Formats: sequence, structure tokens, C-alpha cells
Amino acid sequence: MIALSLVGIGTGNPDHLTRQGEAALNAADLILIPRKRGDKADLAELRQALCAAVVTNPGTRVVAFDMPQRDSADPDYLGGVHRWHDAIAAVWHAHIAKHLPAGGRLALLVWGDPSLYDSTLRIADRLARRLPLRVSVVPGITALQALTAAHAIPLNELNAPVIITTGRRLREHGWPDGVDTLAVMLDGDCAFATLDPAGISIWWGAYLGMPGQLCIAGPLAEVGAQIIQQRAAARAAHGWIMDTYLLRRGG
Amino acid sequence: MIALSLVGIGTGNPDHLTRQGEAALNAADLILIPRKRGDKADLAELRQALCAAVVTNPGTRVVAFDMPQRDSADPDYLGGVHRWHDAIAAVWHAHIAKHLPAGGRLALLVWGDPSLYDSTLRIADRLARRLPLRVSVVPGITALQALTAAHAIPLNELNAPVIITTGRRLREHGWPDGVDTLAVMLDGDCAFATLDPAGISIWWGAYLGMPGQLCIAGPLAEVGAQIIQQRAAARAAHGWIMDTYLLRRGG
Ligand SMILES: C[S@@+](CC[C@H](N)C(=O)[O-])C[C@H]1O[C@@H](n2cnc3c(N)ncnc32)[C@H](O)[C@@H]1O
Ligand SMILES: C[S@@+](CC[C@H](N)C(=O)[O-])C[C@H]1O[C@@H](n2cnc3c(N)ncnc32)[C@H](O)[C@@H]1O
Repeated sequence: MIALSLVGIGTGNPDHLTRQGEAALNAADLILIPRKRGDKADLAELRQALCAAVVTNPGTRVVAFDMPQRDSADPDYLGGVHRWHDAIAAVWHAHIAKHLPAGGRLALLVWGDPSLYDSTLRIADRLARRLPLRVSVVPGITALQALTAAHAIPLNELNAPVIITTGRRLREHGWPDGVDTLAVMLDGDCAFATLDPAGISIWWGAYLGMPGQLCIAGPLAEVGAQIIQQRAAARAAHGWIMDTYLLRRGG
Repeated sequence: MIALSLVGIGTGNPDHLTRQGEAALNAADLILIPRKRGDKADLAELRQALCAAVVTNPGTRVVAFDMPQRDSADPDYLGGVHRWHDAIAAVWHAHIAKHLPAGGRLALLVWGDPSLYDSTLRIADRLARRLPLRVSVVPGITALQALTAAHAIPLNELNAPVIITTGRRLREHGWPDGVDTLAVMLDGDCAFATLDPAGISIWWGAYLGMPGQLCIAGPLAEVGAQIIQQRAAARAAHGWIMDTYLLRRGG
């Protein structure tokens, strides 16, 4: 039996880790850390450093593994994602067979919170078809919380609803009906620029919780161009970027 | 100058506290803990216990204060809320004047995350009109994250949007257009019961992160009545309840 703990580690600040996360990492026999060859955004070093800082149990082994590559040329997008998740589950399985042949506790560090735009739970479902598995989740600070904290703003207006959505959906479907606050993640290309900016405010953040944290806020009509420009410059300088933003209209 | 730190403490499990939260509490000269007379749900004891467990700085004073009561009979709902927030800011101000006459660091423990359905940031805005104030926010685990962790489920479907809303809105406006996942908070009265349950699944949780944690999940048509009944029983037994749930349709 494998007890798999998915530990939300927050979004780059090692101090986002909760006491529960710290305990789960220290309770593990094995921690697997994904490494994406040639990808600066894999943040494998940050995960290694986090483990080095908080894991005090001498029985906990930290092992890096090479992440299978997703075939981004695959015309069947969903099928490709499924095959990729299968491949990741197979690699986990191989490492479990090697390092925990008699069973034990495995922990994986999940960026932000495991519930939010993350595949680890779905990959764990696949692993459960291969071996006896008990999955538990340790919640972590999401990028949205890092964003609202950095700007010291509420997510919602008084008792009002909020939509969490992706850049792609905002681009394809526009502003959704009936909601005045939009939290946008997974936006590779500034989907806010496709909106009529009149009456919309934006709170944008990149590398939240990390040393390079960037924050810009204001009326979209005034700061939209500045965000696009700073984002491009930061992305070029770092070689990668992670950013998210809140949009509010009216009020 | 007062440096006010709003520290998200998670939703009942003291180990939801982050390392950043722990540091912010220990950096404070003064921690104010609200007490609502005769209200078992004020959780003042839980906050006191959290401070006792993590505050090691001998210079940090933990002081309880009586929360002003909101006049729930006030027919002017919004006006009443504003007056109540004014009254809370005035009480904070009085405690600051007494305990930090020369300025210093004040920390407040905020349930869950300060960004989500919480008034502390809005009350801090009022305090800022009374004295020189610098506000910082330490993110914390929300009830939604405690819910998805307890059920070990993702919040969103693959790349799909999610609405976070309130029980009142769900009751008054029904299922919002264009979104298949709804996270419902602040529901005093099982608003899910007003929906046609066909094709809807629910993941419900009460007292999440706390010793009395309750979780029920399944097709709404099958488990809806059970949730209503268990909720009523638990509420009667504890004298209060906090619960939240995720609804998903289709799939
Ligand atoms: C695959 S999702 C994972 C989200 C993560 N599970 C969470 O809870 O935040 C990645 C997206 O999260 C956002 N994100 C994650 N970390 C971030 C950071 N440090 N700064 C800004 N945005 C971040 C970006 O929108 C990015 O496209
Ligand atoms: C005023 S809001 C505060 C939310 C908080 N700021 C957060 O981040 O979770 C209170 C609502 O949060 C939810 N909630 C908070 N703590 C909870 C818990 N331990 N279990 C279940 N629901 C909880 C309930 O829906 C409750 O009505």
C-alpha cells in the first residue's frame, strides 16, 4: 500500500508552506521532484531548496525524476493530455517500485493548491489503477491568494460572486454574464487586451511570492499597455513567466 | 505609524497556518482577538490556542476585545454593515491608542484567507482614515481549499471555469449561466435544495479542518436530504455550524 500525500507548497515563497505541509513532507519516506529538461520554469531547484529547508527527518529520501514531455504537436489535444498523464503515472510507478518496493509514504510537492488548475490528482487516479493507493491532500496557498495578498485587496465585492477562469476562455468567450469580478489564470498572452477596457480595473501580478515579484494595478485603460510591456520584458529577462490577474468592472 | 498585518489562519486546523503567518504573529507587538459575547461560533478560544502554540516572542501581547454587535434588525442592510465596520474600526483604534501609543506592529488573525468573504480589509480602510497605517496581508488556507482537500478533488474541471458564490445568490438567482462548477459559501440554509438535482453532484463539508469535520459527497438527488438532516443535527449539537460545498453538473 502506498500512502500518497499531495502537498500544496504555495507559489514560490517557501514560507507559504503550512505547518501541515511541513509535517507531511517530514512524514514521507520518499519525495519525488519533477525535472523538465531545458525548462527554466520547472522550478525543480526551488522544490529542492524547500525540501532542504524543512525536511529534518533523516529517513526521508528526496529523488528527482525526469518529467515525460507532452507532445504539444499532437492535434488531438485532450487525447494528448491523457496520454501524457498516463506517462507520468508510469514514471511515478517505476520510482515507487524502485524506492518503496514494500510500500510506504510518498509525497509530491504541488505548486499552489492541488485543487486549482493542476493535474496531480488526475494523475494519482491513474496510479491508483496500477497499485493500492490512499491519496490525501494538504492544501496550499494559491496564486490567486498570493495576488490578492500582494495587492492587499479582497477577491470578492461585498457578498458578490467571483469567476475563476483561464486566459483562453476569456479570449474566446469574453466577459462572462452576471459576474463583475474575474480571476484569470493560465493566460499565456494577455487576454485582457481583447476586452473593451472602459470601466474595468485590473490587479496584475507575476512571480508572486518570489524575489522577482511584479505588481501593477489601476484602470485597465491606463495600465493595460504597461502590463503588456513589462510582462514581455520580464519574460525575456527570466526566460519564463507566471502571472495572474483580477479584473473588476463597475463600482 | 501602525504596521497592520492581516494573517490568514486557515479554517480551524492550527496546522493550516503558514510559516509566513507564524513569522508575522511573532513579529507583532500586539495581537487583537475578537470575542463575541454569547456566541459559540466566535472561535476566540481557537485563536487564543493558536497564539499560545506558535507565538514564542515574549514581546508579543495577545489581547482579547469585545466585538461590537451588528444591529441585525436594521432595515437598512448595507448602511447597517457600514456602521458596524465603523464601530469595529473605532474599537481597534481605542486598543491601539492604549497598547501601542507610540506606534508599532499589530496583527489580526483572519479566518481562512483575508481576501475571501471577509471584512477585515474593509475595516482596515476605515482605520486608515483615523491614523497612519501600512497594511500587509498574509494569505491563508480558505474553506474551499479545506473542502477540496478533505474530499481529495479538484476545484475545476480540466481548464474549465468555476464560480465562487453565496447561498443567498444561489437561492435568488439559480444556477449561473456558462459555468458547470459552483463553490458555495455563506449558506445559512441549504440553498442547493432549491435546485433541480438531476445531473448535479455535490461535495459538502462542515467544520472543515476541525475535530468535528463532516464530509458527504454524491449525486445531489441521492445525498441532498442526508446533508440537510446531518447539518441540522450537527448544528443543534454544536450550537453553530460552518459549512461549504461544491456543485458540479454534467460530466
Ligand atoms: C497550472 S496553474 C497552477 C495553479 C496552482 N495550482 C495554484 O494553486 O496557484 C499555473 C497558473 O497559476 C498562476 N501562477 C502560479 N504561480 C504563480 C506565481 N508565482 N505568480 C503569478 N501567477 C502564478 C499562473 O496564472 C499560471 O499560469
Ligand atoms: C465569512 S466567510 C469567511 C471565509 C474565509 N475568509 C475563508 O477564506 O474561508 C465564512 C464562510 O466560510 C465557510 N467556512 C469557513 N470556515 C469553514 C469551515 N471550517 N468549514 C466549512 N465551511 C467553512 C462557510 O461557508 C462560512 O459561511
